[in-house]
Parts: sequence; structure tokens; C-alpha cells
Amino acid sequence: MTAFKPLDVLFNPASIAVVGASSNPMKLGGRPIAYMQKQGYRGTIYPVNPKATEIQGLPAYPSLSAIGQPVDLAIIAAPAAMVEETIREGIAAGVKSFVVFSSGFAELSAEGAAIQSRLREMCEAAGVLLLGPNCLGAIDIRNRVVASFTTAMEEHELIEGGFAFVSQSGALGAYWLDMVFQRGIGVSTWIATGNEAGVTVADAIHHLAHDPATRVIGCYIEDIKDGPAFREAARAAIAAGKPILLIKAGRSQTGAAAAASHTGALAGEDARYQALFEQIGILRVNSLLEMGDVARLVLMQPAPTGSNVGVISVSGGAGVLLADELDEAGFRVPPFDEATRARIDAALPDYVSANNPLDVTGGVAGDSSIFGRVLDALGTAPDHDSFVLFIGLMGSISADLSQSLVRAFAKAGKQVVVVWIGARPEVVAELERNGLPVYPDIPQAVSAMARARDLMAGQGRAGALEGIAWPPPLPSPESCEPRSEVRAQDFVRTHCALRFPTQKLVQTPDEARAALADLSAPLAVKLQSPDMLHKSEHGGVRLGLSSPEEVAGAVADMLAIARAGNLRLDGILLQEMTPVAQELIVGFRRDPVFGPLLLIGRGGVEVELRPDRAMAYLPMSPDAVEAMIRGLASAPLFTGFRGGPSGDIAALARELSRLGDAFAADESIEEIEINPLALSKDGGFVALDALSLHRRAPPEPQAATSQCPVDSEAAAG
Amino acid sequence: MTAFKPLDVLFNPASIAVVGASSNPMKLGGRPIAYMQKQGYRGTIYPVNPKATEIQGLPAYPSLSAIGQPVDLAIIAAPAAMVEETIREGIAAGVKSFVVFSSGFAELSAEGAAIQSRLREMCEAAGVLLLGPNCLGAIDIRNRVVASFTTAMEEHELIEGGFAFVSQSGALGAYWLDMVFQRGIGVSTWIATGNEAGVTVADAIHHLAHDPATRVIGCYIEDIKDGPAFREAARAAIAAGKPILLIKAGRSQTGAAAAASHTGALAGEDARYQALFEQIGILRVNSLLEMGDVARLVLMQPAPTGSNVGVISVSGGAGVLLADELDEAGFRVPPFDEATRARIDAALPDYVSANNPLDVTGGVAGDSSIFGRVLDALGTAPDHDSFVLFIGLMGSISADLSQSLVRAFAKAGKQVVVVWIGARPEVVAELERNGLPVYPDIPQAVSAMARARDLMAGQGRAGALEGIAWPPPLPSPESCEPRSEVRAQDFVRTHCALRFPTQKLVQTPDEARAALADLSAPLAVKLQSPDMLHKSEHGGVRLGLSSPEEVAGAVADMLAIARAGNLRLDGILLQEMTPVAQELIVGFRRDPVFGPLLLIGRGGVEVELRPDRAMAYLPMSPDAVEAMIRGLASAPLFTGFRGGPSGDIAALARELSRLGDAFAADESIEEIEINPLALSKDGGFVALDALSLHRRAPPEPQAATSQCPVDSEAAAG
Repeated sequence: MTAFKPLDVLFNPASIAVVGASSNPMKLGGRPIAYMQKQGYRGTIYPVNPKATEIQGLPAYPSLSAIGQPVDLAIIAAPAAMVEETIREGIAAGVKSFVVFSSGFAELSAEGAAIQSRLREMCEAAGVLLLGPNCLGAIDIRNRVVASFTTAMEEHELIEGGFAFVSQSGALGAYWLDMVFQRGIGVSTWIATGNEAGVTVADAIHHLAHDPATRVIGCYIEDIKDGPAFREAARAAIAAGKPILLIKAGRSQTGAAAAASHTGALAGEDARYQALFEQIGILRVNSLLEMGDVARLVLMQPAPTGSNVGVISVSGGAGVLLADELDEAGFRVPPFDEATRARIDAALPDYVSANNPLDVTGGVAGDSSIFGRVLDALGTAPDHDSFVLFIGLMGSISADLSQSLVRAFAKAGKQVVVVWIGARPEVVAELERNGLPVYPDIPQAVSAMARARDLMAGQGRAGALEGIAWPPPLPSPESCEPRSEVRAQDFVRTHCALRFPTQKLVQTPDEARAALADLSAPLAVKLQSPDMLHKSEHGGVRLGLSSPEEVAGAVADMLAIARAGNLRLDGILLQEMTPVAQELIVGFRRDPVFGPLLLIGRGGVEVELRPDRAMAYLPMSPDAVEAMIRGLASAPLFTGFRGGPSGDIAALARELSRLGDAFAADESIEEIEINPLALSKDGGFVALDALSLHRRAPPEPQAATSQCPVDSEAAAG
Repeated sequence: MTAFKPLDVLFNPASIAVVGASSNPMKLGGRPIAYMQKQGYRGTIYPVNPKATEIQGLPAYPSLSAIGQPVDLAIIAAPAAMVEETIREGIAAGVKSFVVFSSGFAELSAEGAAIQSRLREMCEAAGVLLLGPNCLGAIDIRNRVVASFTTAMEEHELIEGGFAFVSQSGALGAYWLDMVFQRGIGVSTWIATGNEAGVTVADAIHHLAHDPATRVIGCYIEDIKDGPAFREAARAAIAAGKPILLIKAGRSQTGAAAAASHTGALAGEDARYQALFEQIGILRVNSLLEMGDVARLVLMQPAPTGSNVGVISVSGGAGVLLADELDEAGFRVPPFDEATRARIDAALPDYVSANNPLDVTGGVAGDSSIFGRVLDALGTAPDHDSFVLFIGLMGSISADLSQSLVRAFAKAGKQVVVVWIGARPEVVAELERNGLPVYPDIPQAVSAMARARDLMAGQGRAGALEGIAWPPPLPSPESCEPRSEVRAQDFVRTHCALRFPTQKLVQTPDEARAALADLSAPLAVKLQSPDMLHKSEHGGVRLGLSSPEEVAGAVADMLAIARAGNLRLDGILLQEMTPVAQELIVGFRRDPVFGPLLLIGRGGVEVELRPDRAMAYLPMSPDAVEAMIRGLASAPLFTGFRGGPSGDIAALARELSRLGDAFAADESIEEIEINPLALSKDGGFVALDALSLHRRAPPEPQAATSQCPVDSEAAAG
């Protein structure tokens, strides 16, 4: 369990000192004072500036120690050179926490990084909180604490609410603040962690998981240093019913250039973050507007219990467009039941048909009570889980219409979403104040509904992960040593019952001839050496051999290749050929941030056109592995699709789960890859090739590479 | 060639009468007068109302004939019952065109449809123009003509510009007007065609193709009645450099329930519209906001000549998010060349690195001249085709910053797009007035860039289609008659050199035995009857037979099946088996709206997981067919991917082009399907099964179905 830092003193301080305080409310050291005075912070503010006796109407002090009163939080807006001494003095004076705006530390130079380390050590030793340095600070709306110099505070009134934001970028944090206040979304807490010498994103999320005012958490990250802490905090928040909407830069980043195993290439850095997000139910979004669109819906509306949507529109065309968009997003727009249709017919004029989408027509829409009456009629429709209303313009009747909507919505008890093209801003504000989210066009509304549905699914996943003991991540090895297929098989065989082809390892052509008595032709003949990684490209694989002469000849050829290349030799492997119906790739690998992981994907040629894979962190229960496999787009191909063979996915998942446990427990192994893991035409899963990478105990400079280039190929017919 | 209606009299009338004119500017018959007086229409307005002598300050007339002056355009806002008589009177009085707001015609009842037909005939006979009935009318911004009662005119000033809109829905038309004026986008012409008794969407597009004020055409359609006219008008507009951005409702519509051939199921109504859009370069969008986002970019900016983008950002994180989004949309963000880097280094402080994305940092961004200097340094970067600037907030320096941007942009000469999160509205307006489109977040900007790129590609396609003689569409047949594989083969063999398996049609087991001398086992044995459509499901296909006994036995079995079912019998087909590497499906079919079409898609099991197909209307040149095949996602699988066989795509395209010409020319054939068209392991394309559907000359009630259920299966091993 991670020891998260308690952040209460940061968000609810009784007194705040501002070091480097300025009389100019536009300057870095002037802004927090100006903002807090304007917003009505109820504690005491102590401006600290040796050159002033009064700042922005408050008595100023020459230093932290001169204040002579308890200081819960000191904001440091002084030059970098003064920060270390200021914190030392503040600790001595009993200051309980610091927010350091100043830049010029690890982000600038090695010297700055050294000072930053000393700041961290000083604060840790003293048991005081440090946010920053090089950070935009922290804000708590309820307590009117603005320990930040963000200009996003200039133009907006604070709105209390349930949306919190944690950011590794000050800029993104500021844009977020501007966006939510401009859209009228209420905020609980906001924090930009800067260089994270002290408080991290994980600390902040853990705090919010237990903060009663916070209901939805927005997050922007670039780089997580303590993976387990982040996972633990995020899981706790999500399991507590607080969804996390997260933006992470770098999703187009390609896999590390040095990775040359398939698993390595597939498990690029961003893909591993993405795997974590999916596993614990973090919803990744691509922009602040998208984040705001989803958050508004989640904050205002109950989650629907199903995917049946009723559409009510003032325009027939728009109703169809809305149904199109819902259909593509995986919702359904089924007809209303008999009783509901009767209620609609009773409530509306004859020329309106009680269809779904329900076109109330432009004429009817001129009546401002119409949507209220429709919602009353639909409210109890037993087959429908949400309603989307489409409205356009409406000019002078907008206000009446929105009031009637609000009244009807209060009785509906189901999710109700409004698309209003060309709505007046005051009408949007009125509806949203009353819990009806309004979107300016159809795609935004449907996308928000779809993402909110994904969030609900994620919450279920996070709950199921409670109490799991995640193996710790290990730092990436300096170098690693590959093992041949037979040696990799040894580990797999020891720990699970995955099936391999019937095979025999031989050392000479004569042994090969003798082995034929126990094997059914045709055979694959494969050179086994840790020094030949691309064996099919170097004459190390021959397929479909049957006669003793062919097989013995192939063995002799490979022995000659091994001698010529001075290769370490584990032998020559004779394997019965497996008729392959479909191929999987299975990889176990260590991520230095979040720990060991399992990758399962479709193998073979098809997948190079369209990737189809899943990753998740170990341990993985048999059920979880089975869900992973069944979640592949190509999963039907492995379960008897259109007359093809049907593999026992549950049994396969059981073995992979066991193998994962063994892999996670043996820290000497960096990677195991089984590729292909074939579904044979008779319906069995057979491991047709394998390799493993092992950490070298001490780095051996003459052979050291940061990662070993490895290739693997099918022994399939 | 379609005879399109000339619409000049509608958009530039010297005089306008309003029948049903009202003194109340909020009423249907009052609005056009009020709008035109407010906007400054320069011609004469004649209110017509027998109960008034003066309306909104203008002398009123009791009837059209009482005006006694030439009337170019008469707006009819009177009850439906009066419309026919009013038009008759107007024609007699020399009125040149009519816009009929009134509803109650074909959209309401059969009686209304009959009146509507009479209106059309009257106007056609008199050679006058009719827009509507049941329409929201027409607007020409330059001429200040507002022959519409849309309330979207209430709250906005008119802005002249290059964007036009043609809509089959009045509601969508009104939302569009509201959107463009609210966003400050300039408009040329606007028209809502209502019931289309006279002027159609095609007439309007044809008019705009030749309207010098129009540069981009927006369009909303639900149902095109005259497909060739629409195609001709749209192609002409696009070829004239006027892109069409189109919304069509109904994209989630599933294929016609009655269609049971593969081609029929794949070529549902919406998919056929989509095929037309792609073939002639219409860009389909899904919402008005998306349409506005793309149109702004196209109207303001030159099209880039390549896909290399330079990113300049005030926030490092946002720069990476922008690069992510560009990468996913198929753009590239390559480093700047040496000389450009040197210019950046000279223009910016030391701590800014001349990378792409270029992070000018928050500190530097406080200098309002920064983007101007960066743009100056980047303007001549030889490797980059467009630039995207990311800006956030900026508060008080916004105005200075935007002015410096405008100055630098004037010199840049390349596409420059601005993402400005939290921008002040007046700054957005200032930038856009000066040709710099501003987007509120990253995804919107990148999506607009990507769609604008698609538009450019579409324009090239439309140009290449000039002068093509499209075969006319035929009405759907009452019923059709299927033919067996061998009979369908006859047509294919007659018209092209597609390869079939070596085969022999036999009538008896003895003939089958004898035929074995000319065939290489293993064989497929297939019952040939127009009455057995699902032959593999009814014992009509046996695969992999080798011995004379097996083959003769299979033939005897199938003859028994045919006798038992009283099937018409073309014989039993013995075919050599083809080792299949990959499968295509090829279908020729008639679309009653746009004419004969060709469908090519991947076949086999894979495609049922992920559809991969293309459609286009005939005639198709060999080059066009080849481009279609190479455009399939699975195309690499047919051209030697990872050691697989490589088919001669050009030769295949040549044959399919010839077959398409023959199909289009023979109007007795409704459909031909070749499924699968296999790529054999030896690299040849072989037609492994085929069927055709033929129009019955007179409907035969006892067997009539609107479409014949047909199935087809592979004879592949």
C-alpha cells in the first residue's frame, strides 16, 4: 500500500502566507492575494515582502518567520534562488505546507534538479507538504483557496460543484478552469502538480477519492513515475463511484525503436498506459471539450440502465440523423410499447405518429408545452432507458419551452439529454442549472452518452479489482539474454499445461532418423540456439519434411550452419506439423512503470492489416483472461465461426492465468512470447513457437544491448 | 443531359409580390416583407391582401392581377385551398416565378398530391418557376431577397460571402442559417425545396455551379428522385471548384429486407448514395457544426499541397496532443529543415528548441509578437505545407496577439489554422475576418483539415468524370428470375475473359464417369437449377470428390434431389477444385435512382467480422476498377502480402470493366454476382460461383416476388 500524502492542509488552510507578494494584482505574487480577496477566502492572508509594509490592503511581513502566527500554507512566488532558504526558514517557523510557483529546477538544469531534490528531502524530513516547484498551484472552490496565479481566475466567477481536475500541465489546467467556468460547470478542487517534487497526481487523486465534494475527476498526465501509486489511487476513486476522465499526450508515439520482439513492438509505452486505463476503468478522452461534454452528462444525469433510447424531435430529418448517430454508437431506438403509444396519441394532435423517433413537427413545436407533455407521456415507457430531445432555434418561445421541459424532467426519473441547435445562452444556462445537459449538435450529445456508458462499464471493472496484490514493477534491465524455443518451452511446461506439438530434440542426423519412429510426418525441423534469433531467415527452419533422408539432411545442414556461425546449440528440434486454422500471439512482459503484463492478440498475416490485441496487467484471473480473449474483434474466429474449429477458450485462459502468475513471480524473466499459439483445425490450441528473454545478473558490456532483438516465426503448415 | 431550370428570376427578382401579406411582421405572410425591408431589398415589394390597403408601410393590392406591374416573383403565404387559383391568376398576370410556403399538399394526402401535380403542370406549361409547395423558400444575400419566413432571419445581420445551402428540409435549412450567421460565415444563396413540385435540389446545385458568388455548397437531402440530374449538377459544381458538403439522413438504415443476394444485402439504399458521393467527390458530413468547421477552412484558406504540418504551441502538452491528433488523421509532423531551424533559433530565445511541435513556452507566449515572429521564420519552410497554432486563454494580450498573427499570416502564403482554447469572441471574429479560421479545441481543427483534404481528392475525381455517358437508371422490376451458375457463366464468358475452373456439365452418372477423363480430381459437384438458390444447404454441393464411384454417386443423389423437388434442371456441374488463397465478391446490380453499379469487396469469413467493400456506378474504366480494388483495406492480401500469391489486379480490372459495360448495356439483366472470385494459390483469379437475376418481361403473379432470394457459396477447398 502506498503512503499517500494527506492534502487537507493544502485545500483548507486557516492561514496563507504569500512569499514574494506584490501590490500589483497582475503579477505572479499579486494574483493569489487579489483572487482570494475577490472570491472571499475566509482565513488570514499574510503577504511576505521585505520591501513593503502593506500589500493590497493587508499588512506585509519581511519574512515567514516574522509573521509570528501559525501558517498552514506558504505560497512561494519568489525567484528560484531564494526558494531553498525560504522553505528552510518556513519549516523552522512551523509552516505546514508549501506551494512553489517558481521555476528553474529539474525542468531547467542538473543544478536545478539537485536543488529540487534537496527541497523534497527537507520537506519529507520535516513532514510538511510540498506542491511544485514550477507549478500553477492549487484551488479549492468551497474554501475559496486560490493558491495559484492562473489567469483563468480573472474573467470568471467561481462555481461550486462536483468536478475536480488534476494536471501535470499548468497550461492544460488553466484551459480546463476557463472551460468549466465558461460552461457553468461547478468545480470542487483543482491542482497542477508541476515538477512533482512532493505532491504527485496519485496523491491528488487519492485525496479526491475521499473528498465528499468531488464527484467526477478530470486528469491530464504526461508521465507517471510511481505507477503502482497511480493505479491504487485511481482504482480507489473509480470504485468509490468517482469516474476519472483523463487526457494523456503521446498516443501516436510508436513503440520503442529498440523493441524487436512482437510483444515489444505491440506493447509501446502509450499502449501500456492505455491498457492500464482500460483495466481499471479510467476513461481516456482526447480533448478538454470532450471531457466537459461527458462530465456534464455524468454530473447532471442518472446513468441509464440500458441502451434503448427514445428520440423526440421538432424536425423529422434531425430525428433520423439522431437515430443514425445513436445506432452507430451502439444504442438502440426501438418502437414504443402499446401503452406508451396510446399515451402519446392522447397527448398530441392526430397528425403526429407515435413512432420512435417521434417527430412532433415544426407546427406542434410552436406550442411551448409540447415537450413537457411528450415527456409526461414517455416518462414511464418501460422499454426505454433514456430520452434525447432535439430542438432547433425557437426564438421567442425558448424561455417558456425550457421551463416546461424542466418541470416535466423533474418527474421523468430517466436520463434526458437535450440537443438544441442555435439555443440562446441563457436558455442553456437555465436548463443546465436544472440538471438538463444541452449539446449544440447531435454528434456531441451522442458521443457524450456513449462515453458515459463506457464509464459505467469501467466502474464495474474497478470494483472487481479491489484487494488485488499487483506485483511491483522492476526497472528495465541493462541487457537480457534470449533462450531458444525448447528452453522457453521448459518454463511454460513447468507452470502450465499448454499443448506443444509432439516433438523430439536431437543432436545428430542419426538421432533424427531414430526419432522418426516416434513422430508422424510431415515434420518441422528447427535449429535451437539462443544466438540465432531470426531462424527462418537464416536457414534455421525447414517445414513439411517426411522421409528419413530429408529430415536427416536438414539436421545435418543446420548443424553445419551452427558450426559455421559458432552458435551455442541447444540441438535441432523435430516437430510434428499442426494444421493451423487461426493464430494467436501471447506475450508476457515487464513494464517498468506498472509491472508485469499479459498481451494477447490475433496472430498471422491478417493482423498486420488490422491490429487486434489486448493487454492487461498481472495477476489475471482465468475469468479475466477469458474476457480479454473474447473481447478481441476476431474472437468469433476462435469459437466455431461459420464452420471453423471451436477452441476451448476457458481452458486456454486457465493455463495462461497460471503461466502469468509464474511469470510475475519469477523476476529473472523479462519476457515470454508464444507466437503463434495456433488454433489447430481439430480445435486444440497448440504453442507452435516460443522464446523467452532473461535478465542478465550483472551487465556484460561486450554483449550488452538495452533490449535484445528477437524474432519468432510459425512452424505451421 | 438534364434540362435544369434557370433560377435567376428567383434569386434576383426586380419585383416581389407577397400573397397573403400580413401587417404583423411575426406572421408567415408578414415576415418576408419585414425581413426585406430591414435588409434593404432594392426592388419593389407588392403586398397582396384583399382586406388591406397598406401593409408594413407599403400599398397593398387585392390580388396579383390588380398589381398592374411586372412581377418577377410571387410569394404565396395563403391557405392551401387558395394556392391553385392564385397561381393560375398569377400566370395570367405574367408572374415569372412562385415560392409557395403553404402546406397541405403531397406531404398530407392523396388529394393534396393531386393538387400539387396540377400546380406543377400549370407552371411547366406556362414556363414559370415553382418553388415548393410546403417550403421555407429562398434567400439571396447579395440581392437582399428573403423569399422565406424562417425565424433564423430574426436575430442576425446578413453577411455576404461564398457559402450556399440547398436543403430538402426547411428546419435544417433554418438551423444552418442560424449557425453560419452566428459564426460570422458569409453566405451567397440559400434555398429550401420543400415538396419539389418544381425546383429540385439538382436545379439549385446546377444554378450554384454557375453562380459566381458561391464558392462552397452545403446540402441536406433525404431522398433524390432524379438521380442522373443530381449527379450531373453535383459533378458540374465540384468540377467547377465548388466543393459540396452534404448531410443525408438514414445512414444507419439497413439493407432492404427483401434483398437476399450478397450484393443486394451489401448495396443497401444508403450505401448506394454513399457510393455516388464518393465517386463524384461529394463530402458527406454528419452534422451542421462539422459542415461549418470544414467550410470555414475551405473558404478562408488555400488548400495545402501536401500533408506535412508544422505545429506551434504555447503549451508543450497541447503541442503533443495536436501532433497525436494530426498523426491519427494521416498528417505528418516532420522536423523542420536546417535553414528553418536556424531562422527559428534566431527569432526566439535560447531556451526554445526549434522542434516540431515547436513549444514557444508559456513565458514567451506572454509576448504578443511571438507568433508573428514564428510565422515569419516558418513561412518559407520548404518541407511543410500547413501550420497549426495552438493558443490558450491570453486574456488581456489577446487583441495584440491576434493583430500580430494577422500581419504575419498575410505574408505566410500557406495554410494556417488556429486552435485557441478559451478565446474571446471578438478575437475569433477579428482573426476570421482576416482569413484565419479559429477552432475551440484540437480535434475540431484537425478533423476540419482532414475533411478539407478529402474534399480536394474528391474534386480531382469529379473532374475526371467529365463527359461520361452514364446509363439511365431503370425502375425496380416487379419480379425477377434467377439463373443457375452455368447459365450465369454463359453471359460472363461471352463478354470477358474471366477464368472459371475447368469443368463439365453432365446429365447422368455415366456422363460424369466419362467426364473424369478430362478433369483432375479432386472435384466439386454442384446441382444446377434456377429453382435451388441455397444449393449447399440442400445437398446441392459436394466437395473434394475423387473416385468415379464418389462422383457418379453424388450426381445420382443430386438428380434424385432435383426430381423430388420437381426442380428445373440445367444439369450437374463437375468442377476441378481451386486451392484458394483469398476471396473477393463481385456484383453488378441496378440502382433505380442512379443506374447500374459495380460492387467489389473482400469475400470469405473474415469480411463478416469487418466489412471491406467498395461500390461505384458504371461505366467504370479499367483504371477506375483497379483503383477500387486497390482501395480495399484488404488489397495487400491480393498482391503478394507476406509471401502470399500475387494476383494481376490490372488484368482483373480490365475484365470487370468489360463485363460492366456489357451488364449496363443489357437491360434485361438485373444482377450478376460472382462469389467467390478466388485468388488461387497459384496467383490466378478464378470465378468459383456465379448467379444472375433477369427481369421478367411481364410480371407473373404466381411467382412474383419483389426481389428473388438468392444465396451463393464457394466451391473452394
